[in-house]
Amino acid sequence: MQAALNYANDHFDRFTEELEDLLRIPSVSTDSSYADDVKDAADWLAKNLSSVGVEHVEVVETDGHPIVFAEHHVSDDKPTVLVYGHYDVQPPDPIDLWDTPPFEPQRKNGTLYARGACDDKGQMFMHVKAAEAYLTQEGELPVNLKFLIEGEEETGSVHLAPFIEANQEKLAADVVLISDTAMFAPGVPSITYGLRGLAYTEVTLRGPSRDLHSGIYGGAVDNPANALSRIIADLHDDDHRIAIPGFYDNVRDLTDEERETYASLPFDEEQWKKEIGVDDLRVEKGYTAVEAISARPTLDVNGIWGGYTGEGAKTVLPAKAHAKISMRLVPNQRAEDIYDKLEAFLMERCPNTMTLEFKRLHGGKPVLVDTESDAMQSAKHAMGEVFGKEPFFVRNGGSIPVVADFKDILGLDSVLMGFGLDSDAIHSPNEHFGLERFQKGIESIIRFHDHFGSTR
Amino acid sequence: MQAALNYANDHFDRFTEELEDLLRIPSVSTDSSYADDVKDAADWLAKNLSSVGVEHVEVVETDGHPIVFAEHHVSDDKPTVLVYGHYDVQPPDPIDLWDTPPFEPQRKNGTLYARGACDDKGQMFMHVKAAEAYLTQEGELPVNLKFLIEGEEETGSVHLAPFIEANQEKLAADVVLISDTAMFAPGVPSITYGLRGLAYTEVTLRGPSRDLHSGIYGGAVDNPANALSRIIADLHDDDHRIAIPGFYDNVRDLTDEERETYASLPFDEEQWKKEIGVDDLRVEKGYTAVEAISARPTLDVNGIWGGYTGEGAKTVLPAKAHAKISMRLVPNQRAEDIYDKLEAFLMERCPNTMTLEFKRLHGGKPVLVDTESDAMQSAKHAMGEVFGKEPFFVRNGGSIPVVADFKDILGLDSVLMGFGLDSDAIHSPNEHFGLERFQKGIESIIRFHDHFGSTR
Repeated sequence: MQAALNYANDHFDRFTEELEDLLRIPSVSTDSSYADDVKDAADWLAKNLSSVGVEHVEVVETDGHPIVFAEHHVSDDKPTVLVYGHYDVQPPDPIDLWDTPPFEPQRKNGTLYARGACDDKGQMFMHVKAAEAYLTQEGELPVNLKFLIEGEEETGSVHLAPFIEANQEKLAADVVLISDTAMFAPGVPSITYGLRGLAYTEVTLRGPSRDLHSGIYGGAVDNPANALSRIIADLHDDDHRIAIPGFYDNVRDLTDEERETYASLPFDEEQWKKEIGVDDLRVEKGYTAVEAISARPTLDVNGIWGGYTGEGAKTVLPAKAHAKISMRLVPNQRAEDIYDKLEAFLMERCPNTMTLEFKRLHGGKPVLVDTESDAMQSAKHAMGEVFGKEPFFVRNGGSIPVVADFKDILGLDSVLMGFGLDSDAIHSPNEHFGLERFQKGIESIIRFHDHFGSTR
Repeated sequence: MQAALNYANDHFDRFTEELEDLLRIPSVSTDSSYADDVKDAADWLAKNLSSVGVEHVEVVETDGHPIVFAEHHVSDDKPTVLVYGHYDVQPPDPIDLWDTPPFEPQRKNGTLYARGACDDKGQMFMHVKAAEAYLTQEGELPVNLKFLIEGEEETGSVHLAPFIEANQEKLAADVVLISDTAMFAPGVPSITYGLRGLAYTEVTLRGPSRDLHSGIYGGAVDNPANALSRIIADLHDDDHRIAIPGFYDNVRDLTDEERETYASLPFDEEQWKKEIGVDDLRVEKGYTAVEAISARPTLDVNGIWGGYTGEGAKTVLPAKAHAKISMRLVPNQRAEDIYDKLEAFLMERCPNTMTLEFKRLHGGKPVLVDTESDAMQSAKHAMGEVFGKEPFFVRNGGSIPVVADFKDILGLDSVLMGFGLDSDAIHSPNEHFGLERFQKGIESIIRFHDHFGSTR
């Protein structure tokens, strides 16, 4: 392994230049005018994988953008790591807020600026370069390695689950390894072992068959905007707990150990509040803020609209009102069960003056990975050695649907070993990635393979 | 008077043709590309007034569209009637929903179709033709008559109050006579003696300084859309009364006589519900629907918005949420007092996680006219004779700001003798006016002048 580490160190400048080449390809998956560029990025990546000595590389066409699959088999006696990542990027808009052009990478003070520098070209490419270091320098890898790099992550990965479903044997592995998350804080290495799920709904309350004049009808016609507000108000109690009956039935409680870890995290609540511009928080009674944002279920109105929303005064009594209401779920809540409970709660409160339409828009499973597994412990040791301190096992409040898919379809846990930072401006102008983190990421991956390979 | 009535009957076809000429002028006040047409309509009207023998006619320029003022003085011993109306019209959009072109009047089965046929060219022009009948046939009017016909009613009458303020002597009168309202129902003549006032506000609740990711922040950051819903929910109690402390303090109760009149009105609640497409109503406890829509104060959300309102699922925790909230006021509530009380109520409920901005957008006074006055009794007798049944004195749930201005500035009550119907499609495609109502309106006005003139 030491030879691989030395190689990675010696060739780091070239690795960075190669990443810059990839970043120059504007592989914006959400905009069809970039479709050729997305294809170019897939081809570029496949070529790079082949050039570093990965045995089998293919670009698989889908009904959308292609998937890059690669495999390097060492021995049936070795464990198999399936690396997941994505080579597509978010659109660069608003483009005039970039200090330098989004697809012309710039290095400034050890930081690389470009769309995709962190999310996920930079983090994904670390895995390719870690493989190169082993294959070039040691002649072999300590694990069997597979790559599944998609081009549609930023558009919802619509063709990924069908691909996984159809290629279960090809993708068979012992664990999935993903670098597409952030560290808990600068200088605080962390491995994500929990993700929240999602149940996202759209609610429409319909009253009169058309918008009415509030002078002529106001006082006798029930107003859908007022009624929707009443219903939404009922969804929380005074302790900021969700008031839907049975909502917490399947919630796995935080363990004492988890709460101790949470308490030891370097979470600066004052700084956090300042950064988002609020004077005070609103947290479920009995939990800390950092617990509440990652290990407790939530309910938020993501959007609300109805009636007249332009300038000035228009005296309309709206015919209908809408809200997008979503819930973040935690183990062992299930989206379908929560949908059912919310729908029953809403229907019970729908006034007899109206009808209520309930749409289930988008659901996702929560994830919890055993931190004691060989793979998680390998990641912990690897990062500990690189950063000179033990990484935290943390839970993340967001959702990564593909992680649930890997579990559901392939039965695989994912190790989320991320090197981003919340301040990397992913999805925003001036996205960047610290070159030190790029380097430490490659080193952590090299060490992960070594540790995980030696467990069998 | 009989000669005037006969004259109006004999010349009704020509009156209708003249109205059609006026309707051909697209005097859309809200769209500056029609400015010349608005001016043409004012000039046309002035010319018509002069031609029928009204002594003094002038077109007064304002900073907006002109006002047509006319005066015919008979005797200092006679009472003076100030006729108010407007010659501007709503835009014809959506134009493709008209069966015939909006500015090419069409008669079909005794109904005249055109933009402005009812609102208010048709109703206003009845007053000009009633004057013509007297002046041509009797040589004189039974009252002193003034006309104040504006061209900005559909744009909020912004230059009217200043004009009234600056011309109090010129506009001095005993009563204002207006035909710009609807009858209670087809075949049910009515005179409006009450109007509701208005206090229209816009509320903005601001939480975090930017939209946040609901996965990363949800659970600890208070959501402005949820919070606004909670506040709005608090605004009514379970009896559908408004829960703002002191809100009802100055409300004049309905008298027993008024409630008897309400009970005798031919109000078909089932039909009314069917027409607006609701199965059930929501009415303040202790009142009937028809009382609640016209003689009781209300609070309605006219618009609500915040967060993501596009298609699909976007997991945003919105930075802010807005609502337009307006209250219909009844005598003797005052907008400023109600604004203060609502603001205090909202501020008290603004969470310490947010700031609340409160804007007072548009206020108007409620109106109540003594039905026993000479003018109201004259209107009652006039309409009773024409329709063969006694008209109802009714209260209207809407607001006509100029009526409050006449009271405030000139100290004058208004007689709202309207001949429209709710089904006339004013402000909508295929606006129309029944020619029988046009004729009965002219006859009612002739009789009103006769009755009112004889009171002194």
